[in-house]
Amino acid sequence: MIQARGYAALGSSQALRPYAFERKEVDARQVLIRILYCGICHADIHQARNEYGNTHYPLVPGHEIVGRIERVGPLVTQFNAGDLVGVGYFIDSCRHCSSCAEGEEQFCETGLLPTQNGKLPDGSTTKGGYSDVIVVDERYVLHISERLDAPAVAPLLCAGITAYSALTHGPVGPGDQVAILGLGGIGHLAVKFAVAFGAQVTVLSSSPQKQEPALALGAHAFIHTGDKTAMKQANRRFDFILDTVSANHAYDPYLNLLKKDGTLIVVGRPPQTPQLDPISLISRRRKIVGSFIGGMAETQEMLDYCADHAITADIELIPPVDMNKAYERVLNGDVHYRFVIDMAQLTQ
Amino acid sequence: MIQARGYAALGSSQALRPYAFERKEVDARQVLIRILYCGICHADIHQARNEYGNTHYPLVPGHEIVGRIERVGPLVTQFNAGDLVGVGYFIDSCRHCSSCAEGEEQFCETGLLPTQNGKLPDGSTTKGGYSDVIVVDERYVLHISERLDAPAVAPLLCAGITAYSALTHGPVGPGDQVAILGLGGIGHLAVKFAVAFGAQVTVLSSSPQKQEPALALGAHAFIHTGDKTAMKQANRRFDFILDTVSANHAYDPYLNLLKKDGTLIVVGRPPQTPQLDPISLISRRRKIVGSFIGGMAETQEMLDYCADHAITADIELIPPVDMNKAYERVLNGDVHYRFVIDMAQLTQ
Repeated sequence: MIQARGYAALGSSQALRPYAFERKEVDARQVLIRILYCGICHADIHQARNEYGNTHYPLVPGHEIVGRIERVGPLVTQFNAGDLVGVGYFIDSCRHCSSCAEGEEQFCETGLLPTQNGKLPDGSTTKGGYSDVIVVDERYVLHISERLDAPAVAPLLCAGITAYSALTHGPVGPGDQVAILGLGGIGHLAVKFAVAFGAQVTVLSSSPQKQEPALALGAHAFIHTGDKTAMKQANRRFDFILDTVSANHAYDPYLNLLKKDGTLIVVGRPPQTPQLDPISLISRRRKIVGSFIGGMAETQEMLDYCADHAITADIELIPPVDMNKAYERVLNGDVHYRFVIDMAQLTQ
Repeated sequence: MIQARGYAALGSSQALRPYAFERKEVDARQVLIRILYCGICHADIHQARNEYGNTHYPLVPGHEIVGRIERVGPLVTQFNAGDLVGVGYFIDSCRHCSSCAEGEEQFCETGLLPTQNGKLPDGSTTKGGYSDVIVVDERYVLHISERLDAPAVAPLLCAGITAYSALTHGPVGPGDQVAILGLGGIGHLAVKFAVAFGAQVTVLSSSPQKQEPALALGAHAFIHTGDKTAMKQANRRFDFILDTVSANHAYDPYLNLLKKDGTLIVVGRPPQTPQLDPISLISRRRKIVGSFIGGMAETQEMLDYCADHAITADIELIPPVDMNKAYERVLNGDVHYRFVIDMAQLTQ
């Protein structure tokens, strides 16, 4: 067994605290990764607090992992010790179903194995990236270019691929009128990708103070969603709207901003099930489509695209001891745009 | 002015009764149509009873019109006296917007002019097909093949094009697993079209007694939506579901029957706004898309397809005096599958 250290939640109302545990030895096709950085995804907080109702404690969160390979199993072919690598939302899938065969493991028909809180055959659960090391089958590990700023890559592994897959499946292309609803972890990366794809990008936000940062990120326009006149003027303007908001909201006011045949892409699940007036769809043949992270090949494609186009997340790098403070700031919407934990400081 | 006779509702709680009125003379580009048959669409009943809250009385319903041209204006080029023709949901649009330019007049950006209850510039309203004659610009008139059974063509002008456009935009093709939810006016035509397109067609209905008629129409399978085991077995089975139901229902149980990347097509508006759990979309990258009748070119394409493939509606032909009885039967779901009024009997 490999001795590991990290931070865990021991119960739904407890703060994260230092936690020692064991990881299984490196299998023939697995790699041992020394974790350097791990992003804090909003879902980590929901899960630490058992807000999905399925948390197994102790929970070690973390699925936006950047690290270096320390050791490889004898049958590993794609990685060497010293490689800069990433691990995202899942670390295994059935590998045999139609979705896995198509390289869309995120839709594995028998269910993927999440990086954190995933149930293992022996009854234990997977422990995520708020830790010093992790062992993963090479099939679920990603190459990261040394050209990129490593800590700012971490959020690409979940927020980034969520934005990238949603936009590329749109498909968003040059000249398209694209709106990004919400300017958080996913939203700010969606702005960068959509601009890189050549779209005309508008940020929609309920916070008027997001205008300046939106334009600084490269957006071409900004609409405060509370401004009824501006919303009315934007009626039927967009080809695509990527809805990154997981707070409660209705879909209809945004559907009305879409042209004929326009698409609302949703990636978040508000606590209250939204209502949907089908007339918003029928009257202009609009559609709503869901999107969920991305497959391994697509995530690698995104990371390569980011290396070629110098795209990373805007982050605040924090030491592990500041995790709990960071959680409170995320819940208050006080982060630009993602916290990343400097896991190397764990071992000092 | 042209003297016309028909049936009208004079108020929201009144039965339809014989009604005499005037139509404007035939313009240079208009044709005068002697109406032979007119279908009864469920929406006629809602409108006669002011259930949409926008009915102008007297209301002459009817937008599934089949007739023969009696007279043409001097600049008419596409039609001659004696031609068998059809008129559907609308009789004019702006003709200049992007949608009209694309031949998708049903999405006219400034609003189309409905065949019934449509507001005219002089403050009067359009009078529909429950009448003996109608005057329409040739741009909004359709050719009907003499090979088809004329009364059974009438429902193609609204129910038929609704089903055809929804399926062709799917796009539904050979080998696709397609479910039709609801076996009414639209649903029974959707079964015929989907079978003709080479799809594997399953009818979903809350009425188990619809199984036999569904299979008789050509469907390959039937699922009673109240049968939990059968519904569970159909999990992730379909590429497309065409939802023709306008009674209250949730979308999520049907979304779960779709494969990854599957599409729920909606054409009806239930009285209560449905809830939609976005996880049903996100978990398999599914989509919901609206569809609304079809444009003029597409409606002509459908009528030509029907002539080539011998597709018409299954109807009950009734004399005008039975209209009110037919309305009650429609509301009780007691019609296979569309009432068509024999308007020629009006003049006897």
